[in-house]
Amino acid sequence: MTEVTLSDRGDALTLNHCGATARFHAIWLRDNAWDAGTRAPGNGQRLIALRDIAEDLAITGARIAGGQVHLTFAPEGREIAYDPGWLMANSYDRAAPRTPGWLADGAEAWGAGLMNDVPTGDFDAVRTSSEARRTWLAQIARYGFAKLEGGPVRDGALFDVVDLFGHVRQTNYGAKFEVRTEVNPTNLAYTGLGLQAHTDNPYRDPVPTVQVLYCLESTAEGGENMVVDGFAAARRLRDENPDWFDVLSRNCARFEYAGEAGVRLTSRRPMIELDPDGALRAVRFNNRSAAAITDVPFDLMPVYYAAYRRFGQIIDDPAMEVSFRLNPGESFLVDNTRVLHARKGYSGAGTRWFQGCYADMDGVRSTLAALQAPAREAAE
Amino acid sequence: MTEVTLSDRGDALTLNHCGATARFHAIWLRDNAWDAGTRAPGNGQRLIALRDIAEDLAITGARIAGGQVHLTFAPEGREIAYDPGWLMANSYDRAAPRTPGWLADGAEAWGAGLMNDVPTGDFDAVRTSSEARRTWLAQIARYGFAKLEGGPVRDGALFDVVDLFGHVRQTNYGAKFEVRTEVNPTNLAYTGLGLQAHTDNPYRDPVPTVQVLYCLESTAEGGENMVVDGFAAARRLRDENPDWFDVLSRNCARFEYAGEAGVRLTSRRPMIELDPDGALRAVRFNNRSAAAITDVPFDLMPVYYAAYRRFGQIIDDPAMEVSFRLNPGESFLVDNTRVLHARKGYSGAGTRWFQGCYADMDGVRSTLAALQAPAREAAE
Repeated sequence: MTEVTLSDRGDALTLNHCGATARFHAIWLRDNAWDAGTRAPGNGQRLIALRDIAEDLAITGARIAGGQVHLTFAPEGREIAYDPGWLMANSYDRAAPRTPGWLADGAEAWGAGLMNDVPTGDFDAVRTSSEARRTWLAQIARYGFAKLEGGPVRDGALFDVVDLFGHVRQTNYGAKFEVRTEVNPTNLAYTGLGLQAHTDNPYRDPVPTVQVLYCLESTAEGGENMVVDGFAAARRLRDENPDWFDVLSRNCARFEYAGEAGVRLTSRRPMIELDPDGALRAVRFNNRSAAAITDVPFDLMPVYYAAYRRFGQIIDDPAMEVSFRLNPGESFLVDNTRVLHARKGYSGAGTRWFQGCYADMDGVRSTLAALQAPAREAAE
Repeated sequence: MTEVTLSDRGDALTLNHCGATARFHAIWLRDNAWDAGTRAPGNGQRLIALRDIAEDLAITGARIAGGQVHLTFAPEGREIAYDPGWLMANSYDRAAPRTPGWLADGAEAWGAGLMNDVPTGDFDAVRTSSEARRTWLAQIARYGFAKLEGGPVRDGALFDVVDLFGHVRQTNYGAKFEVRTEVNPTNLAYTGLGLQAHTDNPYRDPVPTVQVLYCLESTAEGGENMVVDGFAAARRLRDENPDWFDVLSRNCARFEYAGEAGVRLTSRRPMIELDPDGALRAVRFNNRSAAAITDVPFDLMPVYYAAYRRFGQIIDDPAMEVSFRLNPGESFLVDNTRVLHARKGYSGAGTRWFQGCYADMDGVRSTLAALQAPAREAAE
């Protein structure tokens, strides 16, 4: 059953549809019309701007016909049809905002318990089957990382991983970079040192939102990979001490990298980034490239450092960690705005050779949404 | 003259240097030491994490010698030297935060007055002279856009522009895209329509932070390019009505593009984005790809739309606009997080052919900083 009621002034509509109720403003409805005069039929882009909608807009008539809501707008005098299902799916008539640190987009926080069920795809399956690709990309969207097994052992094979969803983000490190022990390294990643869990390149703005690490050789002792959910760590900090969560999210840290000639990358960004409505957006954590923090007021600096210390302790807690050893032809991908990664130290006999590259999460989400869309439409 | 005073508990230091005074906390000082045990001498990366610094850290001794500040830390019992000039340059002991909407990083807001002095570089000079390149990149950092004249008229010449500072950000539109009239366009940019001033790809996350548009043919009537400073527009909105500025910066809009098979890009980001401390960070404005706004509470939606309307009016105001006509071999670059661009409509006889591509501002800022660094050090 579908019912509509107009407000007295015609500035809002109340819609009852399938047992749910939601209010919509006239201006929102007119702006979000899907008729051919408002949206380009082929690509769906909006053909009008807000300046094309009258300021004294009002709904002068509302009726149901053929399962659609038909609204007449003044001063245009035109009737436009709306799908009530689309309207309810896009309702904005709901309760007050949530506690800061909530998770948007179906993300799910995790800890060491995920070790028994590490998100993993098979290289050939993900490459050739839409269903397998959708499943693998959905794992990345949900958990912020996934492994990929059974790939070729070949220089540049990591680009085949990126081709599954998007494009390489080239940087001063090149289209790809070699992670193995070097003499006089430009980056500590190119040594046998263990690395604390970190996000990559926080000194870059925008930060690369995806990192792929692909194993080509692995006979050295140690060198296991480890991942930590930065969103879970941030939420744990919030639950332990909301003031500490606030101080890390309301103040900018600074990051810097100047390890090569001609490169001096700097950024001014918070360690815990929230959307303006409090959704967790990104975590940046990297002791190697943290620069002097100069944007925190003097009186807050002690509490800032206490929070920073505790955040690091949470990140270091084995209860947060999922670790695995990659063999040649295996790789993993992280959402670098969310999941920290680490490497245990290695040395002695044998070799360890990984290749890494950056890409972006918009490709992951776009490819996933396109793969999900037909199913979603069929279900409606 | 340099003087230091320790707090009673050894948790803070007061530094007087060249007539200025600033306080520093012990934990900040220890974390930001530049000795070879703390920072890798070659690449400058930090070798320790906060977990390696004792929680009960205190400064037990402070003395001046050889122009350096020497501090002894307990419980480590080690003396570390600091450059007082570096400390003053990184002081965080200052007054309360500024009004939201302030400009960081030397950005300067502008309006139509800049038309008489459009930031412009010469292609060959910027390519071959460090001085010319520094000047051109500094204009981009300051104003958010610049023209480049005297380039070759050749397919792909826009990549030579990107090589001046960074790397192409490849997207679903390819490494580059052709901007000319098409039948059945996947994007309205590929028509002769005039386009309202907008930022590109707000549906992408992270958004491409640089756009280059390069002219290869231009004999059609019309089609002039125009740019508007989104930061100036946001600050004008704030000065006219702080509530409208707040509603656009504290709530997320949504953007979407689904004009091609296999692509469904969506984002949830504010039209006016602030850093957590209120610095203007980014503007997103694009009527064509604005999706239904569903993250604004019902009661706020009317004021949101009033603010959105006024923001658009300010952007459309000729007093904000700098316009120019590009000839073959000429191009312009915008900081796509700040400067909106537009195109006047064109039609009739003649052709108009531009090539466009995306890149990122971190390359602009890094290359500029590396070019500025030697001069800065020489001046000290």
